[in-house]
Amino acid sequence: MKKIINKPTDFVEESIDGLVKSHPDVYAFSPDNKRVITRATRASNKVGIVTGGGSGHLPVFTGYIGRGFLDACAIGSVFASPSVDQIASAIRNGNNGNGVLCILGNYGGDVMNFEMACEIVASEGIKTKTVIVADDIASAKEEEKLKRRGIAGMIFVFKIAGAFAETGLSLDDTFKIAKEANSNIRTLGVALSPCILPEAGKPTFKISDDEIEIGMGIHGEPGIKREKLRTANDLVDELYKRIIDDSKLKANDNVAIMINSLGATPLEELYIVSKRVNENLSKSSIRNSKTYVGRYATSMEMAGMSITTLKLSDNLEKYLFAKSICPFWNN
Amino acid sequence: MKKIINKPTDFVEESIDGLVKSHPDVYAFSPDNKRVITRATRASNKVGIVTGGGSGHLPVFTGYIGRGFLDACAIGSVFASPSVDQIASAIRNGNNGNGVLCILGNYGGDVMNFEMACEIVASEGIKTKTVIVADDIASAKEEEKLKRRGIAGMIFVFKIAGAFAETGLSLDDTFKIAKEANSNIRTLGVALSPCILPEAGKPTFKISDDEIEIGMGIHGEPGIKREKLRTANDLVDELYKRIIDDSKLKANDNVAIMINSLGATPLEELYIVSKRVNENLSKSSIRNSKTYVGRYATSMEMAGMSITTLKLSDNLEKYLFAKSICPFWNN
Repeated sequence: MKKIINKPTDFVEESIDGLVKSHPDVYAFSPDNKRVITRATRASNKVGIVTGGGSGHLPVFTGYIGRGFLDACAIGSVFASPSVDQIASAIRNGNNGNGVLCILGNYGGDVMNFEMACEIVASEGIKTKTVIVADDIASAKEEEKLKRRGIAGMIFVFKIAGAFAETGLSLDDTFKIAKEANSNIRTLGVALSPCILPEAGKPTFKISDDEIEIGMGIHGEPGIKREKLRTANDLVDELYKRIIDDSKLKANDNVAIMINSLGATPLEELYIVSKRVNENLSKSSIRNSKTYVGRYATSMEMAGMSITTLKLSDNLEKYLFAKSICPFWNN
Repeated sequence: MKKIINKPTDFVEESIDGLVKSHPDVYAFSPDNKRVITRATRASNKVGIVTGGGSGHLPVFTGYIGRGFLDACAIGSVFASPSVDQIASAIRNGNNGNGVLCILGNYGGDVMNFEMACEIVASEGIKTKTVIVADDIASAKEEEKLKRRGIAGMIFVFKIAGAFAETGLSLDDTFKIAKEANSNIRTLGVALSPCILPEAGKPTFKISDDEIEIGMGIHGEPGIKREKLRTANDLVDELYKRIIDDSKLKANDNVAIMINSLGATPLEELYIVSKRVNENLSKSSIRNSKTYVGRYATSMEMAGMSITTLKLSDNLEKYLFAKSICPFWNN
């Protein structure tokens, strides 16, 4: 296992500490919980936006704290949900007196622990609403959308809800736009190689030197199919078709897209993918308002990528493009 | 070789094409040369900033075109210098009538081809000056600084010269501040695993599963020493000491730092490195004005990282922090 780390048991604490030390103008530790990060400068009055989830996915989750983004985040161990206590602390820290919108990925532990944390803070008088992101079309059929996992599309929901909340509108309104964003995203990815869990010291899954897995989850959850490596264009065409079929995107629709590296896959390859996606969108007469290319939601050093489409309404576009301050987002 | 590509011979063309298609508001193809990228909206009057170099290092070189950054870039094949013709075209495209500052890494082919291209455009009446970036302290001793290779520190030179040029000051003044930035940067890296050249289909070098190489170049050039993998803190402490000794940084100096992934190394590990670097700076009473963490200068999917320090004068700080518009730079 070749990683630049110290003790594997310190991996999470040290990487968060490094994040805060590197960007002290953006992030701060919660005074009451070492696994909760807040904004360096607390917002006043606005609806709080809070998330949480396992480590190993930077910039997801913690990285997206910042003005026009999140207020606080509860940080679990690698690929593990944060505890109920940690989540409750994140919600308290994210609350500015006007309620908190929780946005999380659709993973059993996270969903359960957020539910319990919301009950606890409700008894303290903090109102919450929750949006569970479910954009991974590989993880369940369209008829069972609510079972889908949340992956890179989550960042679009963070961004839009975060920018909207800055306007000072209500929790109900913030919930509504976050739900709209969530229902308008579709993501499909492909894995080329596993990552290694620092504490376990072994790969999350095995895959042959000439194989890829379409739709594999960011924790190595089984995908749609395992097959031989093929050309980028062939691969993109299949992912694109599946996304378009599922999303019902059609001519004259307006979208934003995200080409996300799962970790090791370099920018050169992401841009080869992006080229083909953009060409396919043109052929379909779908207008692409903005392409985001980079490492947005990762599995440490896993090789692979995902494609996300976000169907834009005028309102979603307005908040997607609103200015924010976050080291991992370029306005 | 597991890469998301089409024909290896199309790797460079397709990745540039994807870059332009993904960010059409930032980048454009030169009308006269397919291996030259310019700004989407040409600047008027100001000194042009032009670079060029081999492919496989995104966002270096092309990615740093944008307002407050570069005007044009000549793009070589993977790890190969662009041709004299391509460089001459980039200079012509980058020229806004007030001369061009060329900023390039210290690699034999690049230096030679830029020299010849500058002679050609001089005969056409375009005045140029050149800054050759040489920040890699592993590649030559302090007494032979001019022999050093240019690596991640180059981005600081791009940024400062680019922001300065926007003010409309002269080529001589732009050259002067770029030279100051160049003399104030020091970089030292470590390689954990090679990358694979698309056309060759094989790794750039071999390294055992438990070994690292300190100071290895971004094309696999030999470093200072090959040794067993050790803890992040141990490793950072050695790199830090070598950088401080070489740069003569001392208490009360003001710096910016860059923790750069060579490709596959994930953000979590970069932040563990950044934590230790920031702690060491504190111990040395050196003030760190800003930490940049991410993939700034890569070798495709190579694993490893580099640490760069930039000693800041008030003037350098002003232009480092000036607003720019570029997908790979967060103001």
